[in-house]
Amino acid sequence: MQQVDTLILHSLIVTMDPAGTIIEDGGLAITGTSITAVGSSEVLEQQFQADQTIDAGGGILMPGLINAHVHSGDLLFRGLVPDIELEPWLEQLWVAEGEYVTPENMLLAVQTAMLEMIRGGITTALDMFWYPDIYASAAEKLPFRLITGPVYLTLGGQENNAGQARLEAARAFLDMYRGSELIRPCLMPHGTYTVAPDDLLETWQLAEEYDALLHIHLSETRTEVATVEERYGRRPPAHLDSLGMLSPRTILAHGVHLEQEEIELLTERGASLVHCPVSNLKLASGIAPVPALLETGVPVLLGTDGPASSNDLDLWIVLRFAATLHKAVSGDPVFLPAEQALRMVTSTAAEALGIGHLVGSLEPGKRADVILIDTKKPHLTPLYNVYSHLVYAAGRGDIETVLINGRIVLEKGKFTTIDEAGIIAEVHELGKNIAAFMAAQKTGSRQRTQ
Amino acid sequence: MQQVDTLILHSLIVTMDPAGTIIEDGGLAITGTSITAVGSSEVLEQQFQADQTIDAGGGILMPGLINAHVHSGDLLFRGLVPDIELEPWLEQLWVAEGEYVTPENMLLAVQTAMLEMIRGGITTALDMFWYPDIYASAAEKLPFRLITGPVYLTLGGQENNAGQARLEAARAFLDMYRGSELIRPCLMPHGTYTVAPDDLLETWQLAEEYDALLHIHLSETRTEVATVEERYGRRPPAHLDSLGMLSPRTILAHGVHLEQEEIELLTERGASLVHCPVSNLKLASGIAPVPALLETGVPVLLGTDGPASSNDLDLWIVLRFAATLHKAVSGDPVFLPAEQALRMVTSTAAEALGIGHLVGSLEPGKRADVILIDTKKPHLTPLYNVYSHLVYAAGRGDIETVLINGRIVLEKGKFTTIDEAGIIAEVHELGKNIAAFMAAQKTGSRQRTQ
Repeated sequence: MQQVDTLILHSLIVTMDPAGTIIEDGGLAITGTSITAVGSSEVLEQQFQADQTIDAGGGILMPGLINAHVHSGDLLFRGLVPDIELEPWLEQLWVAEGEYVTPENMLLAVQTAMLEMIRGGITTALDMFWYPDIYASAAEKLPFRLITGPVYLTLGGQENNAGQARLEAARAFLDMYRGSELIRPCLMPHGTYTVAPDDLLETWQLAEEYDALLHIHLSETRTEVATVEERYGRRPPAHLDSLGMLSPRTILAHGVHLEQEEIELLTERGASLVHCPVSNLKLASGIAPVPALLETGVPVLLGTDGPASSNDLDLWIVLRFAATLHKAVSGDPVFLPAEQALRMVTSTAAEALGIGHLVGSLEPGKRADVILIDTKKPHLTPLYNVYSHLVYAAGRGDIETVLINGRIVLEKGKFTTIDEAGIIAEVHELGKNIAAFMAAQKTGSRQRTQ
Repeated sequence: MQQVDTLILHSLIVTMDPAGTIIEDGGLAITGTSITAVGSSEVLEQQFQADQTIDAGGGILMPGLINAHVHSGDLLFRGLVPDIELEPWLEQLWVAEGEYVTPENMLLAVQTAMLEMIRGGITTALDMFWYPDIYASAAEKLPFRLITGPVYLTLGGQENNAGQARLEAARAFLDMYRGSELIRPCLMPHGTYTVAPDDLLETWQLAEEYDALLHIHLSETRTEVATVEERYGRRPPAHLDSLGMLSPRTILAHGVHLEQEEIELLTERGASLVHCPVSNLKLASGIAPVPALLETGVPVLLGTDGPASSNDLDLWIVLRFAATLHKAVSGDPVFLPAEQALRMVTSTAAEALGIGHLVGSLEPGKRADVILIDTKKPHLTPLYNVYSHLVYAAGRGDIETVLINGRIVLEKGKFTTIDEAGIIAEVHELGKNIAAFMAAQKTGSRQRTQ
């Protein structure tokens, strides 16, 4: 008998491996951070003895989900400014951010976001916000798998520190997390309308030098496209391409307003796109051309976007929107079958993010980022097709246990490594301060205009 | 001190009354089936003493949701035939229904559907399927508030018993549940393409005679509209109107393919429409013209549709789709504010269904159909605007306690009046039989065609 750390037995395993292997009454053997074996419970019990054994009770075991676009820091402002036009919404949000985006508050925000994401079965996120070093150290501690790094926002009144200081801070982050087990560094220029071309180039050179990803907003709104076209004579994809920045390491967010020749350009360059339907619909940005993207061959990932816009970090709902919306838009009820949709938040996402050798499927040698779904629920009864259930019926509330990097983080609905209730209480208190500050701002601004 | 049965204290009450009253640290006093008082916890504690007191722990207390279009019996076939075209999907579904729609199985199906709906905060449903008497008695027992009744399907190979026998069965149901506390009888002709004009008229006369609602599918797909136009020379709304069947007691499902003059006709006649976006998108039926419907003045309710199509009975997801989709389609991020959206599943729905005097808001004298939402969740942190939270962040997994008609049905996540685990296990077993039957059918059909 081979000794392992953890055995998970008696689950319906949805491996998301290339063959789409599903194992009934299956399990995992885990040693340290990684999966030693995937197989039937019977065989695993004969081959391995473990320090701890988890009986999955017939639940579904699958790889943790990958949220490929999020701004965790925005969590502090979730629902603060509801149901108003985009421009006044951004103005009010920026006032709040200007006052409350501090290192201490960002630690609280990212911890709450990770709690929310883990409860929702997400084990990896691509997260763009200020103070990436605070994000990264919080993620290592939990643990949580995070792709993050230096944010650039050099135009439009939201600049972070300029020039040499910014470059040095970026290099320091990249040096610190190069080769980290849990943190994959990523350069994060905000967008083509908010970062000057020289600064875009600086991020690109750093990405190449450090073998890092580059994540940027692209063609989210008509206004953005018009602004870039007016300023540079090219629409955002062509502008990025003129700087040499479209490549397989380029992860674009949104892509709502893309023309067919732009989609073909992305395919040629090997760039990936993160579709954020809940945010795009709620902010009335539009509907991304997902059928054309998939048909042309662009890897499509899914993201929740930040909680100030969309308003939660529920990737199951994003998946449901993505898997149904484009059926109606294309008029084709067969478009995007459930297994393919589920790969957008598992194997396809992992490959596009350059971590396909680590996560995205349950296979021997990969890291044990695993979620266990309780199927003893009326809404998951009966069960004919597990992919159909996962895409069209399962949800955040069904996640029972989560392992990240081999470690049990959530066990039967309880966090094992972090004080959830304490953090929630602290953020509620902070929220009261933020609400009071915003109310005072409004009073002040009314007084000034009188 | 006045004696009441139940006190619920220390909640954030979202009453959904006409003024939109919200009470912090509020509660309810409940006597028998009804609400005696709504107010601050402090005042209620001074005025009332109760047999049982529920401490809501700061959670949100609101009226139970109303699912205005569902086919519970389809639950047995949830996900059975995934991701194929509509016509072969229906053919396979009908084969399964032909074999498994028995009184015993329908009892199991509706019980599971009610378990699922109650876990999701739904306390009232408008449910169209065979064996309404079985549905009604199961709902009275649970208890659950159900609007259901005789289904008519007289064309297209799915006929139920014909002529005099059908009429007698319909009258027997209507006589039985006239004046029932929990069951509101409703006539349910399936659609204008599946019920002959004479039979439509029969349902209409019964609806008028018994003061019952009439519920019918309308303009769900292009094929349906074309079929009716070809057969009767009128599109479905005009066809119904020519029979005199559009009125305030007429509750139409879907309405995906409606023209502006048809929307105006519905408004003039006072008919209501149940929007089912998750089903309409998944089956690629299209996107209903909700902005035009609301602007013209048609009451819009929300429905999950049956679990064979959409695939669960999660009205929170339907609400999220409805509140975001039409913002993008109309290009207006301010369209359908959260409070108005929430009324579609509470007060607006209750009024349209003729039960506004009983449910849809928390007000003294109304029935105590109440749900308690646990807000100590990362995804509900912090809290600025409760409507925004309920529409854009809350979900099925947050429902902690549910009262229907004054009775606690779900208490801190456990059912009090029904054996949930036993029913789920039974439906899983039945599902295995159905899967085996369908596999044998396929083998048989392959053999026949060889």
